[in-house]
Amino acid sequence: MTSETMHWINDEEERNWDGPITLRNPHIPKLKEDVLYHLNLSDKANDLPAMFGDVKFVCFGGSPKRMEKFAQFMVGQLNEKIPAGMTLSDISHGSDRYVLYKVGPVLSVSHGMGIPSLSIVFHEVLKMLYHADCKDVKFFRLGTSGGLGLEPGTVVITDAAVDGLLRPYMEVATLGMILQHPAFLDRDLCEQLQEIGTKNQQYETVIGKTMCTYDFYEGQARLDGAFCDFTEEDKMAFLKRIHDRGVLNIEMESLCFAAMAHRAAVKSAIICCTIVDRLKSDQITASHETLEEWQERPQKIVAKFIRKQLGIE
Amino acid sequence: MTSETMHWINDEEERNWDGPITLRNPHIPKLKEDVLYHLNLSDKANDLPAMFGDVKFVCFGGSPKRMEKFAQFMVGQLNEKIPAGMTLSDISHGSDRYVLYKVGPVLSVSHGMGIPSLSIVFHEVLKMLYHADCKDVKFFRLGTSGGLGLEPGTVVITDAAVDGLLRPYMEVATLGMILQHPAFLDRDLCEQLQEIGTKNQQYETVIGKTMCTYDFYEGQARLDGAFCDFTEEDKMAFLKRIHDRGVLNIEMESLCFAAMAHRAAVKSAIICCTIVDRLKSDQITASHETLEEWQERPQKIVAKFIRKQLGIE
Repeated sequence: MTSETMHWINDEEERNWDGPITLRNPHIPKLKEDVLYHLNLSDKANDLPAMFGDVKFVCFGGSPKRMEKFAQFMVGQLNEKIPAGMTLSDISHGSDRYVLYKVGPVLSVSHGMGIPSLSIVFHEVLKMLYHADCKDVKFFRLGTSGGLGLEPGTVVITDAAVDGLLRPYMEVATLGMILQHPAFLDRDLCEQLQEIGTKNQQYETVIGKTMCTYDFYEGQARLDGAFCDFTEEDKMAFLKRIHDRGVLNIEMESLCFAAMAHRAAVKSAIICCTIVDRLKSDQITASHETLEEWQERPQKIVAKFIRKQLGIE
Repeated sequence: MTSETMHWINDEEERNWDGPITLRNPHIPKLKEDVLYHLNLSDKANDLPAMFGDVKFVCFGGSPKRMEKFAQFMVGQLNEKIPAGMTLSDISHGSDRYVLYKVGPVLSVSHGMGIPSLSIVFHEVLKMLYHADCKDVKFFRLGTSGGLGLEPGTVVITDAAVDGLLRPYMEVATLGMILQHPAFLDRDLCEQLQEIGTKNQQYETVIGKTMCTYDFYEGQARLDGAFCDFTEEDKMAFLKRIHDRGVLNIEMESLCFAAMAHRAAVKSAIICCTIVDRLKSDQITASHETLEEWQERPQKIVAKFIRKQLGIE
């Protein structure tokens, strides 16, 4: 290994989970300019260390509006002072793909829906934090999900993500080969978050397996898509079978989130509220207000965790 | 087959490509209400036949802003009169997931990035058109892509979509099985669109295979992601190998678009401009203005096709 590649993690090396953000890609330092196309940033056009050097927590969520609201919520949580005449601004507003807000050491990023959409922004956020020389950063995904045997509104913290066949890895077709990337998560971080969540008596906070699918309808055994060739009985048998094997909720990004964070040696956690009990129904019929309140639950748990880490009373 | 399911296509039946939009799902008519959750519509809360009964063309594209602009562009193209005091409005504005505009018989819909995000909106648009009793509808995807051996700005019309291993079908993990859905497209429609495109001498319009990936970086053999364990030579060998087998461009939605449209017996076409020649470079460095102009090329071709179909001079 040459000195030039020393900063990149090698599979055989001991990995430092609390150290600087590293990239497993020896080509990056040879680039004249690294254009983070979907974030509308670049390591030459922007002073990334000045902009992002203090980042310690990156919070991802599907919806751009929800992540804007989360950023505004964090202003109060972190006692951040926004000068008169200023307001929060979407750093990636030129891209029209994702939103990216910064509140002190916290980034709030949207990832859209599904693994490919998350994957693009995850690559580019990792590169951004690497160029910014960030250290000891934690990643969170705050999401919604269909629950299994849980009261809607329950918060699920993922201890393992699995695909539609219960396989605990993400497959990436790479130069004609299918490579498998394990989707491990930090058990200790799960438990710290659960402890914070369970202090709230309004709802339950549980730890379990999350199934991650590429399709919302057939992939999640729903009967109400444009296509369906199975029966109510087939669906229930499948959902009960995966529930018996420890799957507590189903969504569309956890496998990629866990696999990419593990590969980058970044401590991460996935915290989703459930918005329907799939053992009872397919369709999401809770009111807009109820859904809003449920979606704030993971945000509040992570906000408390961040305040604790930063020593904010 | 009972009379109740007669309206659904059976695999063994002859399929009517110019007939009414049908669903291959016998459960839908049994639903009390069909909530199209990600579009913020429902067959009970909205009069879908009144709203969408006249739709003949559905144009999909990744970016919400681009699809809003396309809707505005179509107002002029179709000589639509917008009454004083009115403006186009996003029909799905309550959902924060996709945008949905209507201009006469044309819908303009955003699908986000990647197969899962497209899949959700495709399911719900099909159900919406079914509830609206639409007939003889054509679907188009207007996109951007990385080209292979083509001058950036070239327009590629897809005659077959393949995955990262050159397999011409989309896999959907369904109740513990991996089902394969063929991604066929209408050759005749490709040629009609190419004929319109080639009348413009500023750029080439070609027909060929499109590779569809689940990952923008490693999945498309890019050296500039957060992870990369292959060399420049590996990358070039792979790209040349797929180019030799007829792949002209690479993007992230074609496989799902072609497979779902085929399964629903809806005539469809995929028209993408190329924004980089991957045999020369990974990074997208064209100016914002140039990219804008390139992205308008597929839109203009489809607009001309629609005008021709509607007999507009």
